[in-house]
Amino acid sequence: MNNEIVLLGHGSGGKLSHQLLDDLIIPNLSGVPTEDQDDAAVLPMTGDRLAFTTDSYVVDPIFFPGGNIGDLAINGTVNDLAMAGAKPYAISVGFILEEGLSLADLEKILQSMKQAAEKAGVRIVTGDTKVVPRGKGDKIFINTSGVGLFEHEVKVGGSKAAVGDKVIINGSIGDHGMAILSSREGLEFEAPIETDSMSVNALVADLLKEFGDAVHVLRDPTRGGVATTLKEISVQSKVDITMKQTDLPVTPAVQAACDILGLDPLFVANEGKLLTIVKADVAEAVVALMRKHPEGEGACIIGEITGESEGKVYVQTAIGGRRSVEMLSGEQLPRIC
Amino acid sequence: MNNEIVLLGHGSGGKLSHQLLDDLIIPNLSGVPTEDQDDAAVLPMTGDRLAFTTDSYVVDPIFFPGGNIGDLAINGTVNDLAMAGAKPYAISVGFILEEGLSLADLEKILQSMKQAAEKAGVRIVTGDTKVVPRGKGDKIFINTSGVGLFEHEVKVGGSKAAVGDKVIINGSIGDHGMAILSSREGLEFEAPIETDSMSVNALVADLLKEFGDAVHVLRDPTRGGVATTLKEISVQSKVDITMKQTDLPVTPAVQAACDILGLDPLFVANEGKLLTIVKADVAEAVVALMRKHPEGEGACIIGEITGESEGKVYVQTAIGGRRSVEMLSGEQLPRIC
Repeated sequence: MNNEIVLLGHGSGGKLSHQLLDDLIIPNLSGVPTEDQDDAAVLPMTGDRLAFTTDSYVVDPIFFPGGNIGDLAINGTVNDLAMAGAKPYAISVGFILEEGLSLADLEKILQSMKQAAEKAGVRIVTGDTKVVPRGKGDKIFINTSGVGLFEHEVKVGGSKAAVGDKVIINGSIGDHGMAILSSREGLEFEAPIETDSMSVNALVADLLKEFGDAVHVLRDPTRGGVATTLKEISVQSKVDITMKQTDLPVTPAVQAACDILGLDPLFVANEGKLLTIVKADVAEAVVALMRKHPEGEGACIIGEITGESEGKVYVQTAIGGRRSVEMLSGEQLPRIC
Repeated sequence: MNNEIVLLGHGSGGKLSHQLLDDLIIPNLSGVPTEDQDDAAVLPMTGDRLAFTTDSYVVDPIFFPGGNIGDLAINGTVNDLAMAGAKPYAISVGFILEEGLSLADLEKILQSMKQAAEKAGVRIVTGDTKVVPRGKGDKIFINTSGVGLFEHEVKVGGSKAAVGDKVIINGSIGDHGMAILSSREGLEFEAPIETDSMSVNALVADLLKEFGDAVHVLRDPTRGGVATTLKEISVQSKVDITMKQTDLPVTPAVQAACDILGLDPLFVANEGKLLTIVKADVAEAVVALMRKHPEGEGACIIGEITGESEGKVYVQTAIGGRRSVEMLSGEQLPRIC
């Protein structure tokens, strides 16, 4: 590239925009030359249901231990499709660049997006790039939207949790949020905390193939963490969910960082975690299957559906007490994703 | 709402986020309560092709004569789907709100989005809201992505223009861009310039139904204007396109504003315009059909495909000369959409 930073003209729709697309964005993302592109991508499809989701990513900082805003944006949308029980099929990307962003940083982000998409087996098929003046954005915001197709008839959803079901997670909690916060606050630990950002669609596909209708709920506990997600599910399904504090998988580094910052890992964001609620009689088998996947090595049962109600989430403490968990009230962790 | 402005906590994913969704965003946009919502929308669908598109909107100012960023975001994505020959089906919305945005302004924008979606006959089915601190965004950015279905076999595309074809537009050019710029620069005219922002999908559906394969290209001349869009098509189709200056429909107010600001309306953005390239023998009938629609009252032929080449666009001037038109080079009009 002739210019080393993003200029306002890169967002004009004219020659500079085409250069940015042709020289940097397209080669790194899709490989489909601009002269073959129209206003919308047209894709072959099969089936009679479609999953559709969107997320914008405004994480600060844009580079953090274990990842960056680019792979985060792909993984997040891939996972949202997987949580609907769909096979992620195609992704759109919308960039809002701040004038002055280094093109080298943009290229790193694009490369991470491409790798994440390849790993998840989805295609980036359409996109858009806008530029805002210095001080009217913050380096880069990315929207990814996604469509998914269905390969089976299984219908999962937040309202399908039933009394007796078990709550399972595929690994330790709070890693993404604490990676971001440690990085933002300049905290250093002996073992650095890395984001858990990854796609879990292959894991979900295997679960649904193996256990079908015994899988009731799939959800990724991102913003607001496991607590907020379980609270949402409890309200949707009108049930109580009870966890044991000692069953919650938290790494020592994340626990230490949470202690320093006064946070509860239950409320801290994850980006490669899958919460699933399944029939009790398959729960152990689900955990065993998950552990065979690299994405599910730390899988374990963390709770169960303990009754019908308007939706309550409880944690049994190590010393035998019980506390009620509410949603994150709101001020804790801005721009975590 | 208890709070009159957007707070950082509204983006946390917790209680405040849910309040913003439940009290303001959901009632104004979709009407589907949050407790029925999962990570992705699941929609019934038909057909074997899917259109998929995305656009982010960062227009400044967010309110302007004839519209605001909200209806612009819906119309733009509806039109991109229509340009692929698809019937717009479902839209996602991703908000990036700056801390401090007034909730009253947000509500006005949401209401405009809903109206625009209803007018175009599309559903808003999934969404996401993020909040960035003051000075890290600019009031509101909106991403809309859309999926469209196909009701026919007609395949249109920028590479299908053929020698002899006629170039048709549904009305005057440059209105959106000059509405934004006049508003930004504080220019006042006797007749205020309003945006042309509107959805043209109904017009497109009628065209395709009536003229089928005789419709070769559909494109909306947004950023970069008619000139940039025709240049793109000329390169995609490897043809020359020739327009007559005197055939270009420009309102006196837009021409006056362009003269003051030193702009050429051919390069100014439109948001409710449809460029179509059709077989010569149906061109007059296409114009006649368009003029029956409120969206096509000003329809006219503005040029034709005059030869094969690597892609050149020419304008014949009133006094008989000919100038070659290149793409907007890039600095002219930031944040026009």
